[in-house]
Amino acid sequence: MDNPVLAEVTRGGVVESRHRGAAIVMDADGAVVLALGDVERPVFPRSAVKALQALPLLESGAADRYGLTPAEIALAVASHSGEEAHAQAALGMLRKAGREAGCLECGAHWPMGEVAARALAKAGREPTALNNNCSGKHAGFVCLSCGLDEDPTGYVKPGHAVQRAVREALEETTGAAHTSELSGTDGCSIPTYAVPLKALALGFARFGTGHGFGPQRADAARRIREAVAANPFMVAGTGRFDTRFMERFGARAFIKTGAEGVYCGALPELGYGIALKCDDGAGRAAEVAMGALIERLLPLDEDGKAAFAGFRESVLKNWNGIEVGRIRAAANLA
Amino acid sequence: MDNPVLAEVTRGGVVESRHRGAAIVMDADGAVVLALGDVERPVFPRSAVKALQALPLLESGAADRYGLTPAEIALAVASHSGEEAHAQAALGMLRKAGREAGCLECGAHWPMGEVAARALAKAGREPTALNNNCSGKHAGFVCLSCGLDEDPTGYVKPGHAVQRAVREALEETTGAAHTSELSGTDGCSIPTYAVPLKALALGFARFGTGHGFGPQRADAARRIREAVAANPFMVAGTGRFDTRFMERFGARAFIKTGAEGVYCGALPELGYGIALKCDDGAGRAAEVAMGALIERLLPLDEDGKAAFAGFRESVLKNWNGIEVGRIRAAANLA
Repeated sequence: MDNPVLAEVTRGGVVESRHRGAAIVMDADGAVVLALGDVERPVFPRSAVKALQALPLLESGAADRYGLTPAEIALAVASHSGEEAHAQAALGMLRKAGREAGCLECGAHWPMGEVAARALAKAGREPTALNNNCSGKHAGFVCLSCGLDEDPTGYVKPGHAVQRAVREALEETTGAAHTSELSGTDGCSIPTYAVPLKALALGFARFGTGHGFGPQRADAARRIREAVAANPFMVAGTGRFDTRFMERFGARAFIKTGAEGVYCGALPELGYGIALKCDDGAGRAAEVAMGALIERLLPLDEDGKAAFAGFRESVLKNWNGIEVGRIRAAANLA
Repeated sequence: MDNPVLAEVTRGGVVESRHRGAAIVMDADGAVVLALGDVERPVFPRSAVKALQALPLLESGAADRYGLTPAEIALAVASHSGEEAHAQAALGMLRKAGREAGCLECGAHWPMGEVAARALAKAGREPTALNNNCSGKHAGFVCLSCGLDEDPTGYVKPGHAVQRAVREALEETTGAAHTSELSGTDGCSIPTYAVPLKALALGFARFGTGHGFGPQRADAARRIREAVAANPFMVAGTGRFDTRFMERFGARAFIKTGAEGVYCGALPELGYGIALKCDDGAGRAAEVAMGALIERLLPLDEDGKAAFAGFRESVLKNWNGIEVGRIRAAANLA
């Protein structure tokens, strides 16, 4: 089955590029609200499930034991741009657990945000693991490990108590088996498991409502949602789609991007979970597709509708600042 | 018609992402050697036709009037990484025509090469139009304009003598009408015209052989091919696919990437021209697809075959330097 076009890139009056993919919206009882394309094929959710991966940090009591703030909880769910504020917050989390940056196992990379990368270079500095877009998640893993009284060394490995707890949380929330046959290694060295979009949407419907969770997990999910809504900068960064979107709609919508064109989200007031993937892995397409899907689902006043103009499409400018095209969600999402 | 998958991205043992597209190989008489997908749909070739756009620079005599070297001619065909050597060479071209960087109309952007961008930031400098990946092409346009005794001001506009000459060269070489209805503005502010892949492949079969050209155009094409083969760094930059490929095979294959997943190429010894576009605009897929296509066509000894391992697929490493997957050409290209 060929997946439908989810987003188009225009230049002049011509469609220059097309992004195919699949998307599904479900409620927490497992009813399909809307499905496009093949939603049964296993996909790696990558960073789009960081909110589910963070559940054990709160459920275990580690977040409270170390007094993590909502901003730090938001950072534990982040694919951040590696700006100074992100790096410092990750370091702060580690220090609360009595650790330092050296125990991070995510690897170092130049900040994902180009402005942040150049600022670091301009200061004559080199990036550390704190600048890795996953450093908040990893700082959370270290806190979880310490909270479980486990040595954090090797916390990225599938057999470590941290990854066992994370995998269990993913299996329980999504209802899908996370098997070694369908596993890979993520950019930050932790395991990632391919599961159907359908399972991811169900997991996020539950995450958004607590429906189907025990009271402890429901409370952890609520705290993560509230932490992100209150700290949208922490979860991504300056100018990023997730940050801009949740600055405007964070109280009503949780969304999270993942590498290779994945998006997951939850609309608590409707009880819906959302999961989509662009076949080709393009984040630019996943963003506008997510924007258009939420615009279609969420009851909006005039102001809200107007705000979506910047989320269902984005303007392409050339190096002289002149608009030359658009990236827009395909008509079948509207 | 749905285009076939041209490239796949794997992670662990799973295909994580898929890139569809179309590709065609033709000879200079217009015979189709091989075609995959919809090769009639108009696509913007973007920078993949810079070699054709540079023909008037040589044909007009401007390149010789200003004594442009083979390295400078290669730069006129480049989408370079904005490294210092590229920027200085572009400035050198302008000065040969008695001009300075201020007359470039391509706009400034941070070097496309991340290492070059950070080096510039580290030096406390800001990018200029010389760092724009198209600065060599634009310096060539300025030389052409001066060589035609035309004021270069506005040389990016469709009605300027430079763009009229460029459009004429494109129409004559590809045999396709370049219409304002199917035009857009490129990243560097010049017009770009959507034409079928079929026309682009024909244009490059002619470019690679001179077959179907007059003696002056055939000579210009040969000089451009030789200039690029002798200066593969100038056409792209450190570590870039085009540079690496033509360092190894430049005497036998001309290739040129374009934005939004386009590639054009010529195999002079076989008389073939090649054009492909990934539907979704992904350069990573266009590269390995181009590598696999040329591997299939070009007679190779054992050394040559071994070299293609790095062109028909590329290794994906995570931030700890561990291989986590591959980007590989799809089986139907092999």
